[in-house]
Amino acid sequence: MAEKARLSLNQITVSRWSVAEAVEGCLRHGVRSIALWRHKIAEAGLAVCVQAVRDAGLRVTSVCRGGMFPAATAQERKKKLEDNFRAVDEAAELRADSLVMVVGGSAGLDLEDARRMVADGVAALVPYARERGVRIGLEPLHPMYTAERSVLVTIGQALELARGYDAREVGVILDTFHIWWDPKVAELIAESAGRIFGFHVSDWLVPLPDVLMGRGLMGDGAIDNRKLRLLVERAGYEGPIEVEIFNQALWDADPDMVLAQVIERFEKFA
Amino acid sequence: MAEKARLSLNQITVSRWSVAEAVEGCLRHGVRSIALWRHKIAEAGLAVCVQAVRDAGLRVTSVCRGGMFPAATAQERKKKLEDNFRAVDEAAELRADSLVMVVGGSAGLDLEDARRMVADGVAALVPYARERGVRIGLEPLHPMYTAERSVLVTIGQALELARGYDAREVGVILDTFHIWWDPKVAELIAESAGRIFGFHVSDWLVPLPDVLMGRGLMGDGAIDNRKLRLLVERAGYEGPIEVEIFNQALWDADPDMVLAQVIERFEKFA
Repeated sequence: MAEKARLSLNQITVSRWSVAEAVEGCLRHGVRSIALWRHKIAEAGLAVCVQAVRDAGLRVTSVCRGGMFPAATAQERKKKLEDNFRAVDEAAELRADSLVMVVGGSAGLDLEDARRMVADGVAALVPYARERGVRIGLEPLHPMYTAERSVLVTIGQALELARGYDAREVGVILDTFHIWWDPKVAELIAESAGRIFGFHVSDWLVPLPDVLMGRGLMGDGAIDNRKLRLLVERAGYEGPIEVEIFNQALWDADPDMVLAQVIERFEKFA
Repeated sequence: MAEKARLSLNQITVSRWSVAEAVEGCLRHGVRSIALWRHKIAEAGLAVCVQAVRDAGLRVTSVCRGGMFPAATAQERKKKLEDNFRAVDEAAELRADSLVMVVGGSAGLDLEDARRMVADGVAALVPYARERGVRIGLEPLHPMYTAERSVLVTIGQALELARGYDAREVGVILDTFHIWWDPKVAELIAESAGRIFGFHVSDWLVPLPDVLMGRGLMGDGAIDNRKLRLLVERAGYEGPIEVEIFNQALWDADPDMVLAQVIERFEKFA
């Protein structure tokens, strides 16, 4: 079973909580790591967040998220790149393990053009991140997000992009919800050795209630999270494991009850 | 532009029509090919359908669908295989170009076990289909259907399975809705040369309104159908092109208007 000490609470799972509340929640429940979202950081103020996680002794596994590179005009793309620089600044201040990239979708653009814009965006971002000691974690999203959120949809594709850079600077974030379907998932996880910057668990509900909000607690769906964790460990990753669940019912529930359930399911199914 | 002569109406696009009505619709609109669904064939009676398409001089591009192999018990799997034999019988009587396989999902099963059950099912089906002159078309579905409909989710995976058999007996069905996201789609279509048994077009609506019913008319979404058609042609496929759209608004509309729109969009965007 997965050790509770490895659990990192991705704060989107308890979306009603502010950063301060999520940090306090982690302390109350004995969770040692947390992943923060930028809109929540903005609400609280970066300095307050930095102080809160330091006072609590929490490890920040990731800042969510940079990316969203593709856009129709050079001016828009420049603006998006500037926003990514700010995301790097925040990840640096928070001493996050990595800045997670959700690279952006193709809607309104040619798919190959969008993919080139992503490669260009990453290329422009890496030197800035390097200077600030921030690692870029490329997260392949499920292919159903290609149009709206991410033209990066397979581990293989993420590795190909990452390999253009030093393995200490650009790696991949493996999220079971996004990768479980891949017929080559075992080989691709093995190939990711040395570049796995993060590992996320959740579950795929059946039937899937919604394209974005269809995730469930581990054990409630079709994903064998344990099998994937063992593959990730065999590839050398022994770091924190984030629980990141977009689910309206969980968002509406009492966050303390949700966190208790997250811990229980993490120990049982991850 | 795609020639109207290549258009095949997949009858699910005009779901309100019976087989007889869909055949008449094709005649009225100058469409030369049709793809039939088994629940519609059952409603009308196989002999009536065979007579209708012969009288109309329509080519039957596919019978939808066989597959759905995975199941928890050997008895259930045997029952599913028997149903596939009936599907082959129907495809043979209708002289369909191929019997399309939607191989079945993994829900409730181990994903690798489900994939083995699919391989076993295909292996048991091929000799029966061969004797009756029916080609098996393996259709990789979009990865978002892994749990509920198809553990076969990439062209690469479909080709790997198909290559265990003669290229005249087992091939792949390429549907733009299912394959457009794949970063290797161009290479994989090229690798499919000689085994492409069918090509389907539709579009991916943004935002995707529903996991099953999210398809749109060509030109209404994120897919570059023309680019994919040209890749398929470069791989040697010059046969009929099915338009297969699951969309509640289209299903609720007047089927004659829908078919007129299908033809217009086919010529413009496919």
